Amino acid sequence: MEVSNLNARIIAIGDELLCGRTLETNSNFIQRQLLKYGIDVERVTVVHDNKSDIMSALDEAGQQLIFVTGGLGPTPDDMTVDVVAEWAGVPIVIDQTVEADLKKRCADRGFEYHFGMAKQAKLPQGMKALKNPVGSAPGQVGKFGGATVVLLPGVPAEMHGLWPLVEAELELSGSNSKSFRLRTVGLSEPKLSDMTESVRDKYLDLVWSWWLSKWGVDVQASGPDPAVLDSAEKILRTELGDSVFASGETELSQTVGEMLLESGKTVAVAESCTAGMVGAALTDSPGSSAYFTGGVISYSNEIKTQELAVPEQLFIDHGAVSYEVAKSMAINCRDKFGTDYAISVTGISGPDGGTAEKPVGTTWIAVAAAGSCTVKRFRFIAHRARSRELTVAAALNLLRLQM
Amino acid sequence: MEVSNLNARIIAIGDELLCGRTLETNSNFIQRQLLKYGIDVERVTVVHDNKSDIMSALDEAGQQLIFVTGGLGPTPDDMTVDVVAEWAGVPIVIDQTVEADLKKRCADRGFEYHFGMAKQAKLPQGMKALKNPVGSAPGQVGKFGGATVVLLPGVPAEMHGLWPLVEAELELSGSNSKSFRLRTVGLSEPKLSDMTESVRDKYLDLVWSWWLSKWGVDVQASGPDPAVLDSAEKILRTELGDSVFASGETELSQTVGEMLLESGKTVAVAESCTAGMVGAALTDSPGSSAYFTGGVISYSNEIKTQELAVPEQLFIDHGAVSYEVAKSMAINCRDKFGTDYAISVTGISGPDGGTAEKPVGTTWIAVAAAGSCTVKRFRFIAHRARSRELTVAAALNLLRLQM
Repeated sequence: MEVSNLNARIIAIGDELLCGRTLETNSNFIQRQLLKYGIDVERVTVVHDNKSDIMSALDEAGQQLIFVTGGLGPTPDDMTVDVVAEWAGVPIVIDQTVEADLKKRCADRGFEYHFGMAKQAKLPQGMKALKNPVGSAPGQVGKFGGATVVLLPGVPAEMHGLWPLVEAELELSGSNSKSFRLRTVGLSEPKLSDMTESVRDKYLDLVWSWWLSKWGVDVQASGPDPAVLDSAEKILRTELGDSVFASGETELSQTVGEMLLESGKTVAVAESCTAGMVGAALTDSPGSSAYFTGGVISYSNEIKTQELAVPEQLFIDHGAVSYEVAKSMAINCRDKFGTDYAISVTGISGPDGGTAEKPVGTTWIAVAAAGSCTVKRFRFIAHRARSRELTVAAALNLLRLQM
Repeated sequence: MEVSNLNARIIAIGDELLCGRTLETNSNFIQRQLLKYGIDVERVTVVHDNKSDIMSALDEAGQQLIFVTGGLGPTPDDMTVDVVAEWAGVPIVIDQTVEADLKKRCADRGFEYHFGMAKQAKLPQGMKALKNPVGSAPGQVGKFGGATVVLLPGVPAEMHGLWPLVEAELELSGSNSKSFRLRTVGLSEPKLSDMTESVRDKYLDLVWSWWLSKWGVDVQASGPDPAVLDSAEKILRTELGDSVFASGETELSQTVGEMLLESGKTVAVAESCTAGMVGAALTDSPGSSAYFTGGVISYSNEIKTQELAVPEQLFIDHGAVSYEVAKSMAINCRDKFGTDYAISVTGISGPDGGTAEKPVGTTWIAVAAAGSCTVKRFRFIAHRARSRELTVAAALNLLRLQM
């Protein structure tokens, strides 16, 4: 199904998106995907789970590429399929394949195939179902007159999981790709802006954008000419050096995992303030058991001593958040687990526990290898959740740069 | 200026909000503020810095309370004031107080009072300027026919800074909550729908909504009468029983953390497939060091034996994902860390490693306490990230129900 519409609209449906409960992030994800294919999003409309509001938004969108998120689930307030059918002037039909799949899902889990589940096998006639790899409600794609309509679940994980199928169905693929994205770690947004200024000045015809990721900052350039993009990417990679950990959608945890896999090396973790987040990140990809065996969460000093043989005197002389403790944790963890590398983390996530000398956000990270140990101090922002997230990124990056 | 309109619309203006560059968060902020006053946001519309798009959005909004964010700055693409004046059919005027203030700002900083700065003293006739405590562009409030229009800067910090002045100007006061929200864990969305059906049928005048969280499903009811809401909440709590872990915004990790704090108990973790995620969740709140000391990430069987003394024979007889191994991990972890409780997790996150008997998503979770150990089997969906997230929720919940 080729897409001729080069303008898109996004309609996000859900009461929770209008009462402050849930931050609407799906449209941002779709925008970023469409940017790769030069498709402009003309408008985003967020409406309630309400028939007339959804209908108005569809009417306003008209003959465009229309993405609708939300309202595909089993509950009574999920009405997207009914409203789209009425808008398109087509009946509702049952998709036999989806129905069989949903019945199997229920049988596998020992659930009754109830009304709400059955509802998810309904499609406006003419739509094609895309099997949801994460949840139960399928995605749907269809053309009605000049409009191309894509229905997607509102749960971000399900929407993301379905996206590759949408790309394939709309024939949005590599050959159309008109952008590149480099993912960086360890650089702030202003710093990245400075470092890329000369390249951006040289390639004024490209559209440049950047945004925060959980690892750092991504930079993306879009334009019509692949040769120009290639050339800009090469220069940019030189400017940014080893701050670039990947291009495209690859996560830092995947980059590090692949490096470990390729080199046949293993890693263990010794975590204090992150309390398991580094281990969780190292195992977010399938197959991670080839390089990750385990670790110690040593949140208290007693456990640092008991499980990682950190000498008590180090706490007295230097404090738990120090070069010496991070180094001891990493080296002893590597010995204990018999791995090639060990990562240790000790920091003050806050909001309490900071001092003038060691303010909230102060973190020491160490990577122990055979015969060496790299230890580095970081000062993250004084916001507990973001500080812990940046600590994970810095820890994985320290290992990456060590390999 | 009293507000008679009880429905609001939010129009967010900015090219950066439609190309994936900037996540639009202002409307979420405004929604949360308005919820306190029982004002429903009917729709959010995000449009480009483009006259006809802004005009359409204003026309569609009609006679309501309209919040417009963005497009108030000094650059040529900032055109909100001009478009609003044209839409309202009023001329543009210069606000003398704002002009004097802007001139002073420039003088203080040694800048020339340039065209872009002067532009920010312009208002549609009839609007009142609200001094921006953070940046230069003032907020603006005015009535045109039945519509109340509020113009706010797009930069979140400026918008937040101006909000108290907007509240005062619109005479929004007397915080009066008109909804309740119950947060559940362990119930699917269809199950929750079934369980709440009789209450919803009894209270048809309330607006019911529910949505997924990382812990489970939340259900919310809104309505004008606090007594009716109280009564509905009581019945609902009885129906849902111990599936309700909190009301409002409280996270499951906070509920569990508070229970541990109050009882003076401690907990440790022994994690296989989640590889640290349970430890990370237990420490996401400040002060968690009072109840969490640490744990073992035992991703490989060797580490389960080496660090948690799980007998090798158990792997041979039952496999790593089994009742016996989960139980052994929990009991031995509790002994090793000397805590009141220990949580263990062992499961198949996938996408590989599943069998007919133990399909991907099969997970055993155990909670060891003094003289007892609760062990439970779960079957999560075959999606690695979501399955791991649900595992964390189930693990924390098993501890909660044990306490």
